Amino acid sequence: MILERIKSEGIAHLSYFLGSGNSAAVIDPRRDIDIYLELARRHGMQIKFIFETHRNEDYVVGSLELAGPTGATIYHGPVQDFKYGKVLLDGQEFELGKLRLIALRTPGHSDDSMSYAVVDKATGQAPALVFTGDALFVNETGRVDFGGLSNIPRMASDLFESLFNRLLLLGDGVIICPGHGAGSICGSRIAEREESTIGLEKLNNPALKHTDKASFIRYKSAEQHEKPPYFSLMEKYNLEGAPLLKGLPLPPALNPSEFKTALEKGALVIDTNLPAAFGGSHVRGAYNIWLGGLPTFTGWFLPYDKPILLILENDLHLETATRYLIRIGYDNLAGYLKNGVEAWYNAGYPLEKLNLLSVHELKAKIDRSENFTLLDVREPEAWRAGHIAGSKNIYVGHIQQKLAEIPADRPVVVLCSVGRRAGVACSLLLRAGYTQVYNVLGSMTAWRQAEYPVVNQK
Amino acid sequence: MILERIKSEGIAHLSYFLGSGNSAAVIDPRRDIDIYLELARRHGMQIKFIFETHRNEDYVVGSLELAGPTGATIYHGPVQDFKYGKVLLDGQEFELGKLRLIALRTPGHSDDSMSYAVVDKATGQAPALVFTGDALFVNETGRVDFGGLSNIPRMASDLFESLFNRLLLLGDGVIICPGHGAGSICGSRIAEREESTIGLEKLNNPALKHTDKASFIRYKSAEQHEKPPYFSLMEKYNLEGAPLLKGLPLPPALNPSEFKTALEKGALVIDTNLPAAFGGSHVRGAYNIWLGGLPTFTGWFLPYDKPILLILENDLHLETATRYLIRIGYDNLAGYLKNGVEAWYNAGYPLEKLNLLSVHELKAKIDRSENFTLLDVREPEAWRAGHIAGSKNIYVGHIQQKLAEIPADRPVVVLCSVGRRAGVACSLLLRAGYTQVYNVLGSMTAWRQAEYPVVNQK
Amino acid sequence: MILERIKSEGIAHLSYFLGSGNSAAVIDPRRDIDIYLELARRHGMQIKFIFETHRNEDYVVGSLELAGPTGATIYHGPVQDFKYGKVLLDGQEFELGKLRLIALRTPGHSDDSMSYAVVDKATGQAPALVFTGDALFVNETGRVDFGGLSNIPRMASDLFESLFNRLLLLGDGVIICPGHGAGSICGSRIAEREESTIGLEKLNNPALKHTDKASFIRYKSAEQHEKPPYFSLMEKYNLEGAPLLKGLPLPPALNPSEFKTALEKGALVIDTNLPAAFGGSHVRGAYNIWLGGLPTFTGWFLPYDKPILLILENDLHLETATRYLIRIGYDNLAGYLKNGVEAWYNAGYPLEKLNLLSVHELKAKIDRSENFTLLDVREPEAWRAGHIAGSKNIYVGHIQQKLAEIPADRPVVVLCSVGRRAGVACSLLLRAGYTQVYNVLGSMTAWRQAEYPVVNQK
Amino acid sequence: MILERIKSEGIAHLSYFLGSGNSAAVIDPRRDIDIYLELARRHGMQIKFIFETHRNEDYVVGSLELAGPTGATIYHGPVQDFKYGKVLLDGQEFELGKLRLIALRTPGHSDDSMSYAVVDKATGQAPALVFTGDALFVNETGRVDFGGLSNIPRMASDLFESLFNRLLLLGDGVIICPGHGAGSICGSRIAEREESTIGLEKLNNPALKHTDKASFIRYKSAEQHEKPPYFSLMEKYNLEGAPLLKGLPLPPALNPSEFKTALEKGALVIDTNLPAAFGGSHVRGAYNIWLGGLPTFTGWFLPYDKPILLILENDLHLETATRYLIRIGYDNLAGYLKNGVEAWYNAGYPLEKLNLLSVHELKAKIDRSENFTLLDVREPEAWRAGHIAGSKNIYVGHIQQKLAEIPADRPVVVLCSVGRRAGVACSLLLRAGYTQVYNVLGSMTAWRQAEYPVVNQK
Repeated sequence: MILERIKSEGIAHLSYFLGSGNSAAVIDPRRDIDIYLELARRHGMQIKFIFETHRNEDYVVGSLELAGPTGATIYHGPVQDFKYGKVLLDGQEFELGKLRLIALRTPGHSDDSMSYAVVDKATGQAPALVFTGDALFVNETGRVDFGGLSNIPRMASDLFESLFNRLLLLGDGVIICPGHGAGSICGSRIAEREESTIGLEKLNNPALKHTDKASFIRYKSAEQHEKPPYFSLMEKYNLEGAPLLKGLPLPPALNPSEFKTALEKGALVIDTNLPAAFGGSHVRGAYNIWLGGLPTFTGWFLPYDKPILLILENDLHLETATRYLIRIGYDNLAGYLKNGVEAWYNAGYPLEKLNLLSVHELKAKIDRSENFTLLDVREPEAWRAGHIAGSKNIYVGHIQQKLAEIPADRPVVVLCSVGRRAGVACSLLLRAGYTQVYNVLGSMTAWRQAEYPVVNQK
Repeated sequence: MILERIKSEGIAHLSYFLGSGNSAAVIDPRRDIDIYLELARRHGMQIKFIFETHRNEDYVVGSLELAGPTGATIYHGPVQDFKYGKVLLDGQEFELGKLRLIALRTPGHSDDSMSYAVVDKATGQAPALVFTGDALFVNETGRVDFGGLSNIPRMASDLFESLFNRLLLLGDGVIICPGHGAGSICGSRIAEREESTIGLEKLNNPALKHTDKASFIRYKSAEQHEKPPYFSLMEKYNLEGAPLLKGLPLPPALNPSEFKTALEKGALVIDTNLPAAFGGSHVRGAYNIWLGGLPTFTGWFLPYDKPILLILENDLHLETATRYLIRIGYDNLAGYLKNGVEAWYNAGYPLEKLNLLSVHELKAKIDRSENFTLLDVREPEAWRAGHIAGSKNIYVGHIQQKLAEIPADRPVVVLCSVGRRAGVACSLLLRAGYTQVYNVLGSMTAWRQAEYPVVNQK
Repeated sequence: MILERIKSEGIAHLSYFLGSGNSAAVIDPRRDIDIYLELARRHGMQIKFIFETHRNEDYVVGSLELAGPTGATIYHGPVQDFKYGKVLLDGQEFELGKLRLIALRTPGHSDDSMSYAVVDKATGQAPALVFTGDALFVNETGRVDFGGLSNIPRMASDLFESLFNRLLLLGDGVIICPGHGAGSICGSRIAEREESTIGLEKLNNPALKHTDKASFIRYKSAEQHEKPPYFSLMEKYNLEGAPLLKGLPLPPALNPSEFKTALEKGALVIDTNLPAAFGGSHVRGAYNIWLGGLPTFTGWFLPYDKPILLILENDLHLETATRYLIRIGYDNLAGYLKNGVEAWYNAGYPLEKLNLLSVHELKAKIDRSENFTLLDVREPEAWRAGHIAGSKNIYVGHIQQKLAEIPADRPVVVLCSVGRRAGVACSLLLRAGYTQVYNVLGSMTAWRQAEYPVVNQK
Repeated sequence: MILERIKSEGIAHLSYFLGSGNSAAVIDPRRDIDIYLELARRHGMQIKFIFETHRNEDYVVGSLELAGPTGATIYHGPVQDFKYGKVLLDGQEFELGKLRLIALRTPGHSDDSMSYAVVDKATGQAPALVFTGDALFVNETGRVDFGGLSNIPRMASDLFESLFNRLLLLGDGVIICPGHGAGSICGSRIAEREESTIGLEKLNNPALKHTDKASFIRYKSAEQHEKPPYFSLMEKYNLEGAPLLKGLPLPPALNPSEFKTALEKGALVIDTNLPAAFGGSHVRGAYNIWLGGLPTFTGWFLPYDKPILLILENDLHLETATRYLIRIGYDNLAGYLKNGVEAWYNAGYPLEKLNLLSVHELKAKIDRSENFTLLDVREPEAWRAGHIAGSKNIYVGHIQQKLAEIPADRPVVVLCSVGRRAGVACSLLLRAGYTQVYNVLGSMTAWRQAEYPVVNQK
């Protein structure tokens, strides 16, 4: 038995390659499928099955892309009206070399959610592993808000049944293989550790402490989640099938004048430099989203109908940036600026700056009672748990919609947890015409380390 | 938490890299330590601890080799008189970023055997993993015969305590990380699947069905194991410290005349070609041990005081062959024949052949009642479970000692499970002067597939 | 300036990646274009031009395949009726960063042959390099026989003009970048060294000693070349455009029963094992073509309309074997036998053998005046330069057409230079029903090393 | 024949791997020798010879390091009192497979300088290549100033003889393989193109226009070169043998508090961020040397007796930074700050900033006649060829010695060609206590692109 866990950073999506003999299955493949083909080749296996745990919302699933070169059959859960693949019956079984996979309906996160238990016939007849999709994570359970507010109680109830009356009954020793790891927007408490079992989750998972259904529903209903606007395109793509890529569409290297031309024709710029570098020099109008933030934050802000240009912290990041963007459906990448922003200013083109503050400078500003807006762009939950007195909280994803709440005629000092999302927010404010914008390097992390005062709000 | 399992093929040794924050530990490192240094670098971690589960017998442990460039501290269990490293107390704890390791005495396989439970403090206070060394494998338990026949009952009793009153009590959900995987001489029933838990082992592991101590001791006492002669050097090395390699000693490429010269000066030749190729052409006197068999079979036959020459199935195997040999202490590699055996015969040097038989030809020989010795070189246990009527069983490792039992004046037809170990045996017979030697390609596997008759012996 | 030489082994085809600034050109790309895309990415360049030196005969050119993802423009010489790309004028110039390329008509090998001189404007105005295609190689000049026998004098005359009145006039210091290296069927005397200059060729190249046109024409007319049948498909593909691959079509891993099924449905088998291994065990009917021989010999024997199955010396060769085959248009690869021939015989399926001889055994056979046909399958030129008395010469490529000349009722002992092509020939004889076939390992190379007698024929 | 050119970036050092059969030679190996071992392994060759072209000044030669694992013999030229290796005779020959190397005395750059002509015996008896060390580069000739001012005429005369009466006589078609490429401090006009020949150099090389010895001596005497202080250690190391590394000493990942502790104990910090990022945030006291500048600029400023700490633009640069530093003898690397400067400020530690200017802001400052020192840190030659009116020229390497010439009581605005060396200079000024320091992003390159006025000085 070969089990390989493939993590897609940024969205912290976990997919799996499971093989035995010369047959393999992939669970929830991503859109850049080269890794699965490479694993199949390395292990001398044919990918015969593609199993989806549900119609994913946060990335484009690669099932159709992978079915092309492999001829594998795609399987989904029922309920959703998929335009491709086959619909599973609860309990349907598949033989894969010496393994048996058993499809289990586990709705709750979504109505079509499936889990897949795996029996290793070489050692016994009880399941050894289970792919849990977005039903059960390490230290977290799936969101139940995608059906809308009114459906939350019903979906939480379904999830309760899927967890307590299906997954947890598989046995404490069963290893779980969830659909996301730490860092996913699909669960803010997912543990860093990626190895877990039913037994460990029963012991540690906060949600599973609520063994009474009503209590569980209350617990899940109290959760707060963000849903970025790009999710709706993902849902459509994953129902109908996204355009096929047939290879990674790496954008071309542009020299400054080619880049400038593309910019002037209406392309949007993403600059992946970290805040300090972006502060020192950037191209006017650029969105500042660091590399690891691309798959999470691009979809909050950038439309899908315009070409995208990249300025990279390091040109070697091109492949990673491309993968991150196509995974969330941004296929129209018009080019990247060869040699980065240095090429731009070496060409004599104008450079823009953004003000940077240390937490000590911020403290001094506050102590001097300077007049400015202190904008904290973290999730409301984090803000409530501890923030600087007087700070205003707007989640970074909502900045563009709430500009009216941010006075343009006085300085705006932005912070988040370390300054990266604050950097995103600052670039949005600059694009919106704000002129006195400051990013606080280290933000709340540094502020706390420096032992400056923090207030919280229950 | 970062957990990486590193498998050394051939001996199926499993070592582990465990990290959190910028600190890491390695459990039972192998002697070619580049993989651990590379993992440390990739994850930005310092290897601070090296934990040994016991004084290993089947390979040279790389603890001292790894302590050199990393400055890590080495820890062992008690009892054995180690010349290096520190001795652990039962229950001793170590902090590693957000993890806690707890050393547990689990004697039985050896008196100094330790396990290491790991608590992920980020999610709870109960262990999430346990490194079990050679106490508990997936589907198998550790050997108890290394203390000699007379100690088996005592050691089996110790192992029973370590298993039932320590490891199994950690909880069904705890993930196990054993010291060997499938293919190890340290346990013939180890499962191919490398993922398991305490719960799964309680369910599936045949040895753990013996929940009564007396029954367990009887069960373990009935096991039959081979102990290759090289184990004694490994034991010495692992107690006193093996010579430091400081890098992989890749032997030089030799042209045929350089190779011939080295050969004539007394070097021994290992030819890694598979049986069919070795049959067609080889250098007189070569040991025929396939690549994957190097770490298991070289130590049965080759002395440590002579230089070794290699003829490789493919020159690209040089690095793998070198790793396999230095892992069991063969550091005196004098060279390899560039372009393999083809270079040899292109130079006009004499080539030797070995007769090959298909199972169908063997069947015909038997049906014709030809006069020959049918030698089956598998383990006695396998032979008893099913063999060809009239075959004589001598385990491949014992051929050299039991030549007197094999008549030299009539053909010897050798088989094993697929023909690889039979190839080893054939090369030993040729070296011993036998002239009518046949290897059966496919051996018992093909014989059974062809549905030819098999007898067994209880 | 970036210059990268890409060698395609087997056919010894050389293509080139030339770049400056963020622009690059590729000269004579092969069909598996990933290497050029990777170079473009590594150097941050856009491939803007694809230059063909002529309508190649011995491989499928990758121009259209590369134009797809890069948008590059394809350029050819005149005369041939290409269905794609643009036709060059003699002397046409292209700017590429700080470089200038100048297209030069250099017919002779073919009527459309072009060379491309490169000026490095940063250091001067004279050419620094020239891409010579199949006009001028290191130590060799291009073939002039592809227009048919009657055209040889005219084409040799054209080549003389292209060499002496164009290329050699560029200057002794100019570096040459030819279309083939040692091992190509397009020139049997091409040197192993791949670095050369006009000056070195004037000094060393045997053909360039013929500075008188009539002498040169006589010299070229006396050359003997083979033209494998697959060349005609290459010519058609390279004129009209071959089917697009859009990625490497790696065939799937098959288990023995899947492999057997495909075989029984009519697929052909290529076994890439070296002669000794093939001798020991192979699947009936297999063509025995070693890995490096695939691009040269497959096209002599295998039709294009049947699926091909592979048995590899090592499964890790799959990618290389696939590349070799698609480069000559064999796209219909139905699968490979996972774990090679060992899997086959382990399944109990019948195995075939082929007799092997050492040169010493052959000598003894001759000395004993045994009755057999001694068949030498090297090129006539090599045979004439030295062979075993009594041997019959039929080039390996012509065996199938000349079976009538080889008696089937007595043993056939086959040799070539080292035994690989003899192995190909043996497998053809076995397929044709010959039953007493022997391959001589080491063949003429070993025979000479052993100082056995050789005769020659002027 | 295998010829591989290995470029060490930064110092633009070129070494070569030359092989034939199973024998190879390395010319001027660098200290991190893994690349040569890897080439030897890939080609199945033994490195038998190490040839030095001269006692190098700008890097630690890896001859002894490479002789260790390979057993190769080291050869030098005469005159210098080397403590290791063998001394060559002029004209001494070496056989290497089918190649012949001929040692040629070519003094001038240094008294012991050797070149090595290579004959490819397979194609002729005249040289095909020549390794020219620092005698002849592409478009440049070697420096003659290392013997001190008074020896320049003599050494220029020697070089003239070596060039015109030895190297150029080898023949126009001979390919040259020099010791440095573009970017080396050993020749400011070396071309980017790395392929050249004697014939091309005769045509293009400016120094070779001076075919009259007196004219050549005048030409060479007029050259201006910098000699960084670290050269003297390199000379000592290369004469006596540097300490052996036996592997790459990658420094450990430090967390901010470990880093701070090391810093407080006296370690020096190098920050490799580009100017914009360094401007936004850095650790007080850090030297700002970009990655590619490490091998060129570290040796100007940092003493060899203190531990060095690294803050990297990207942690993935660790290996490259380590290689760059050990190549010039900085072996005492105490660690790098994991996750870079962001980790520092996230820990709440104080961050420093550096002012940044665009060329447009600089122009405005000048137009407003603001009071500041405009410091241009390029080479005098570059400054004379074009600078901003009123700028003061001190080469970056001399800043520390000439602080007295830079007023500390008014702003210092620093520029170079693009801003990187200006960044180095700024960090030196900050270390020296200057408080009003500005770096001009894009510097003279951007200034010229913006078409602002430039003056020159003959």
